[in-house]
Amino acid sequence: MAAKKPLILVTNDDGVYARGIRALVDAVSDLGEVLVVAPDKPQSGMGHAVTLHHPLRLEQVKYEKATRAYACSGTPVDCVKLAIYGVLKDRTPDLVVSGINHGANSSINVIYSGTMSAALEGAVEDIPSIGFSLLDHSPDADFEAAAHYARMIVKQSLKNEFPEGACLNVNIPNVKRDKIKGVKVCRQAKAFWKDAFDERLDPGGKPYYWLKGVFENQDKGEDTDEWALQHNYVSVVPVHYDLTAHHAIANLNTWNL
Amino acid sequence: MAAKKPLILVTNDDGVYARGIRALVDAVSDLGEVLVVAPDKPQSGMGHAVTLHHPLRLEQVKYEKATRAYACSGTPVDCVKLAIYGVLKDRTPDLVVSGINHGANSSINVIYSGTMSAALEGAVEDIPSIGFSLLDHSPDADFEAAAHYARMIVKQSLKNEFPEGACLNVNIPNVKRDKIKGVKVCRQAKAFWKDAFDERLDPGGKPYYWLKGVFENQDKGEDTDEWALQHNYVSVVPVHYDLTAHHAIANLNTWNL
Repeated sequence: MAAKKPLILVTNDDGVYARGIRALVDAVSDLGEVLVVAPDKPQSGMGHAVTLHHPLRLEQVKYEKATRAYACSGTPVDCVKLAIYGVLKDRTPDLVVSGINHGANSSINVIYSGTMSAALEGAVEDIPSIGFSLLDHSPDADFEAAAHYARMIVKQSLKNEFPEGACLNVNIPNVKRDKIKGVKVCRQAKAFWKDAFDERLDPGGKPYYWLKGVFENQDKGEDTDEWALQHNYVSVVPVHYDLTAHHAIANLNTWNL
Repeated sequence: MAAKKPLILVTNDDGVYARGIRALVDAVSDLGEVLVVAPDKPQSGMGHAVTLHHPLRLEQVKYEKATRAYACSGTPVDCVKLAIYGVLKDRTPDLVVSGINHGANSSINVIYSGTMSAALEGAVEDIPSIGFSLLDHSPDADFEAAAHYARMIVKQSLKNEFPEGACLNVNIPNVKRDKIKGVKVCRQAKAFWKDAFDERLDPGGKPYYWLKGVFENQDKGEDTDEWALQHNYVSVVPVHYDLTAHHAIANLNTWNL
């Protein structure tokens, strides 16, 4: 008898109808049994938000290459929780993949990203988990190269021992596949948004504020995700949920607390 | 001439009208100039969510012990961004404090917590930042001991060199002040929620799902926040936004990527 196919949970933050998640499902559909549970509407920038004070809904949707697919009324993290404890119940996914996101989730974006929070929630559940993001925000982005690398990295993840307590943050440069130089394992760059707000007046004369920002990389390290992406490598950063700044503990112990 | 008073930005995730944030403002009001920018409604479990696709509103509110106070229509992270770039513009806060949260934000809760995400956003902005949480969810919780320790830790933070790229996650046990044994600098415990969903039917017969969970600490370490809190210590965990699992990089480099 053939070995049981691995169960792959697919989610994202752009919503179940986005092209990126369809590209991801297509890329992995023959590597296992595919369950899709993804938000019923875009949830970009939702970070690790979780729905505590109202209930969630699930609606079955058609997905050619998935065994089952659902639209969920909650956040990306809700989708992972509800897939595991509401839909599957008696079986745990062998892999959680999130994306392919329309837009970068490198460096500091990891903390704002719904795509990466879904992957991190998979890690919290002790399941090998990967978030994939393409450096193109457009709804009509070309996912060919990203899907190719997603498939390759998923295959490797099913074959190798996955790092404990961590998920992978994979970003793919927005160039044709033959321009991509390969894959680099990196650390998160110290790069940040320089934020600002546009203050405008509504027709009633009351102010409202639009967030706008410029991304700035001040990290010169060649071992960072930003460096890799700038040089047309796919970046892979292992990301964990232990947020302790261990290096700061000794210093804090000198305070008079 | 007296030295300029430090500017303290106060926010939370329970909303500007919660008792916890009032207790925090009262505790620090004579230590600096206090600006309050906090959500106009409860935002628990919002994690690091940020509002990208619609504008934000600010409404001035009365706050006896603050120089200025605003209710913001966004998430806790939005409040920090809007305070710095929309309200203040030409001046940066010397300290960001978030809380006092009604409920624990120890161990894994740090990634779901709006209170802690606001503090982490302060760290991203390179501002000394602290999140305070009391281990009591009740709206009428007794904040006396928590406010006492918040004041002490704020004083120490204004006096000492703050750890770079990190904020502090401070949790206070829910006991009277004379029962608290002191303060312990800790690491985040490996403790998790064992999730489940209640599946119920609405009056129309369609299912909906309520998240419920039981908290389980399987970390026996005596250097953890959970240990400290269980033994009636105030826990202080330095928390940073570099999510790289540095220890996993060597292993990933052995994969055939």
